[in-house]
Amino acid sequence: MGSIVTLLTDFGLADSYVAEMKAAVLSRAPDVQLVDISHDVPPGDLRAAQYLVGRAWHRFPAGTVHLVVVDPGVGSARRAIAVQRQGHFFTGPDNGVLTPVLGDAETVELRIPGDASPTFHGRDVFAPAAARLANGEPLAGLGPGIGNAARLPMPVPKRARGVVEGEVVYVDRFGTLITNIPGEWTPGAKGIEVAGKPVGPLRRTFADVQAGAFVGFVGSDGVLEIAVRDGSAARKLGVGVGAEVRVQ
Amino acid sequence: MGSIVTLLTDFGLADSYVAEMKAAVLSRAPDVQLVDISHDVPPGDLRAAQYLVGRAWHRFPAGTVHLVVVDPGVGSARRAIAVQRQGHFFTGPDNGVLTPVLGDAETVELRIPGDASPTFHGRDVFAPAAARLANGEPLAGLGPGIGNAARLPMPVPKRARGVVEGEVVYVDRFGTLITNIPGEWTPGAKGIEVAGKPVGPLRRTFADVQAGAFVGFVGSDGVLEIAVRDGSAARKLGVGVGAEVRVQ
Amino acid sequence: MGSIVTLLTDFGLADSYVAEMKAAVLSRAPDVQLVDISHDVPPGDLRAAQYLVGRAWHRFPAGTVHLVVVDPGVGSARRAIAVQRQGHFFTGPDNGVLTPVLGDAETVELRIPGDASPTFHGRDVFAPAAARLANGEPLAGLGPGIGNAARLPMPVPKRARGVVEGEVVYVDRFGTLITNIPGEWTPGAKGIEVAGKPVGPLRRTFADVQAGAFVGFVGSDGVLEIAVRDGSAARKLGVGVGAEVRVQ
Repeated sequence: MGSIVTLLTDFGLADSYVAEMKAAVLSRAPDVQLVDISHDVPPGDLRAAQYLVGRAWHRFPAGTVHLVVVDPGVGSARRAIAVQRQGHFFTGPDNGVLTPVLGDAETVELRIPGDASPTFHGRDVFAPAAARLANGEPLAGLGPGIGNAARLPMPVPKRARGVVEGEVVYVDRFGTLITNIPGEWTPGAKGIEVAGKPVGPLRRTFADVQAGAFVGFVGSDGVLEIAVRDGSAARKLGVGVGAEVRVQ
Repeated sequence: MGSIVTLLTDFGLADSYVAEMKAAVLSRAPDVQLVDISHDVPPGDLRAAQYLVGRAWHRFPAGTVHLVVVDPGVGSARRAIAVQRQGHFFTGPDNGVLTPVLGDAETVELRIPGDASPTFHGRDVFAPAAARLANGEPLAGLGPGIGNAARLPMPVPKRARGVVEGEVVYVDRFGTLITNIPGEWTPGAKGIEVAGKPVGPLRRTFADVQAGAFVGFVGSDGVLEIAVRDGSAARKLGVGVGAEVRVQ
Repeated sequence: MGSIVTLLTDFGLADSYVAEMKAAVLSRAPDVQLVDISHDVPPGDLRAAQYLVGRAWHRFPAGTVHLVVVDPGVGSARRAIAVQRQGHFFTGPDNGVLTPVLGDAETVELRIPGDASPTFHGRDVFAPAAARLANGEPLAGLGPGIGNAARLPMPVPKRARGVVEGEVVYVDRFGTLITNIPGEWTPGAKGIEVAGKPVGPLRRTFADVQAGAFVGFVGSDGVLEIAVRDGSAARKLGVGVGAEVRVQ
């Protein structure tokens, strides 16, 4: 079995777009293992895509190639890039969607072939680049190095005098609010507020509260999350991405 | 190619949770073939998950490992288990979701590693266990045997004096009502009723009625189903899981 | 790694039907690579399925087997077929869903095994046939040749005196309207109308207009598409499949 190639897009699964990207990979690298991260990123939502790639990539073994295509500017002058970080490879548009993995990682600009569809670089630019990387070609062979890839930094939480202020950066299918507050900042937290409403102290897991009650805990990605047991915190609080979160 | 590992969860496909489980499997067992059974089980619906695992598992070849993670009590005192039955392996929470395969099958309790996220045993407990089983480790190597795994038995149909009484146990995407009545109990059935409404005699397939009409037949899992040709029986009858079904 | 087997159905992903088809393939051809094209074809929508198989199949390498199961007449007298075209193989019901690949391709009729479920030929007829083809069995070994497979031709666009008339044949998840008008008929087009409403001249890509504006362009399958940048043309125009498109 060859390398793993993951796919993260906003293409949905109803149309054939994801399958056409997979065909473009498999035509060039027949032995890869394809793994979908998500194709249900809201159309053009770079922040949601950033969150997902940022938490998922390092779960895969080194050598994995991550195809990240949320690309509202496809066909415009925005560049196409590939990135190597800690033995993983990434390819996608240079619109900030790869911010969580850029750091000071080696980054190259991909050439756009003349026959690439100006509306589907996922299939005609990024998937072929992913296949080359999966086949073991070195990053530098894919294009000239660049040092100024676009970045869309996530909001940064603050901490002062025992109070932590952050915000909701993602809402999952269960309506759980995922914040940008590191778990290490929260031990012993006695009071958590979301958009000004108290949701209780820090707990360990859902089972520590009754059904229907709020529960704040350090989630599976190491940050503070607020959920409702057997329910939706997003719905119960009427909030979403950007809602203010305070911990003390 | 290595073993098959199937995945059945209520995680949905919009978030990265399923991909993180797959990463946990592939990091330990790179040659497995991953097959999704469903990730759209309604959140926490143990009965729907039971139905799906019960009908799907035996379609796969022996040696397949089935990861079943519908786990509302994650992080609580509920145990984590692995089961071996007829050459297949299963791993999931000990909350009854594996009832259809327990029988008198060999069952072991999995250890919860200290660094497992208390809200994501799918990734940190069950996926690693599935990888070990896919790699050929014997079940007994995964933990001590137990004899009292939790069971949530499905409702049992009754038969008396030529009348069969059962109920709807699952509704599929087409709105077809799937019952717990074995096909062997229905030959020659002249009248089927759902929630007191007659839906006709037993037929062979959809094509035996006009578009928009009810059709009762022995479905692809060997039990009585009630559909509407080119329509939804659930919507037309206004019923769902638990609706009473009578056959005579 | 063995052949690729693609799957295109209207079964959705919530139930276990797709997984049961995959189990039927893998039980017989364990080394294939499975790729989903879509399982969200609207129930029974042969036209949408035709569109998807027609644009996706030739993206895969020769030797790929395509399982196409949109089959409202399952269990009726409609035949089951397999087709070989340009080194690709196709199997599905003889209801016109394979029209885009029939041409004068070699076509055989599949035998329906006596124990096949009359409501699930996807699992019991087409998946086993796909596995045999993936294992290298010649098409002729699967059944007798036939010359009259059912066809449901797509509407044909017209061109006269500098005016092109076609229609919308598919709407994708972004609300983009995909027409049956070949890109080669549109260069220099100054005015495009959908259902009588002007949507501007031909452009190259989304980025050529402002957010919220209409944009007509030659899409990634080589035909005229009409979109709204960062929006939905289907919603903004209130139209869908069948809407008239005029270009001059």
